[in-house]
Amino acid sequence: MTSDDNRTKNEAAIRNVIDGLVTAIRTKNIDAVMSSYAPDLVAFDIVPPLQFVGAGAFKKPWQDVFARFETVDYEVRDLSITAGDDVAFSHSLNRIRGTMTNGQNTDLWLRSTACFRKIDGRWLIVHLQASVPVDLASGKAVVDLKP
Amino acid sequence: MTSDDNRTKNEAAIRNVIDGLVTAIRTKNIDAVMSSYAPDLVAFDIVPPLQFVGAGAFKKPWQDVFARFETVDYEVRDLSITAGDDVAFSHSLNRIRGTMTNGQNTDLWLRSTACFRKIDGRWLIVHLQASVPVDLASGKAVVDLKP
Repeated sequence: MTSDDNRTKNEAAIRNVIDGLVTAIRTKNIDAVMSSYAPDLVAFDIVPPLQFVGAGAFKKPWQDVFARFETVDYEVRDLSITAGDDVAFSHSLNRIRGTMTNGQNTDLWLRSTACFRKIDGRWLIVHLQASVPVDLASGKAVVDLKP
Repeated sequence: MTSDDNRTKNEAAIRNVIDGLVTAIRTKNIDAVMSSYAPDLVAFDIVPPLQFVGAGAFKKPWQDVFARFETVDYEVRDLSITAGDDVAFSHSLNRIRGTMTNGQNTDLWLRSTACFRKIDGRWLIVHLQASVPVDLASGKAVVDLKP
């Protein structure tokens, strides 16, 4: 069993990874974003395809986000972190908003799950899922929900 | 660090939970579905709202699924399980298909992430996210993707 001390220490380390990711997104720093991910990342993103296999495949969707947003703010709410000795996960409701390069404003809450492994002493995201709910009857994404 | 023996044993135990969940869904056994979840489950489901907090809140969406499907098949593909001593996660591409009570056929691939804790010696799902990607430009859910 994971000791309380280790659990607390690991949860703090994971919080640092998430804080770093938020700063990286706000500053549109693609290298800092990518440094949170393990090479064998499997990402289920808000946009197609079903999955991105390998961190390299997940660079372009972030570059697309950074190209579409003139300015971007990113907020993490209701963050819950559960850490063992070398495996952990977190979930939160994340808000992405800003002004697009086409002049439109975006303000979207998404659901975020991140799964971590401690690799060579460092916590890295090895899997993530980000999504909005959908109305299956109409086939529409539900993008106006607020926590 | 988690020993290789424990990791293998825990991954097998989690595979059993997932196998049990698949059988529960195929047989529309709501009690068996609910027995996979910890009481403090937080679920980010394919349908609104943003989150279901508490296993009790997540019973109705499953009852709705079972009411809408006359027959339901459920398949888990590309399952990956990562287990520590007391924290674990899995991800997979899941196919739900069948005949609805209104006569229509459904055949949908979704992305599934499940996060587990070992509680009193038993692995339970404490968090999950299930989704389909969305096309943000059109606002439409993308429901025709296949792995």
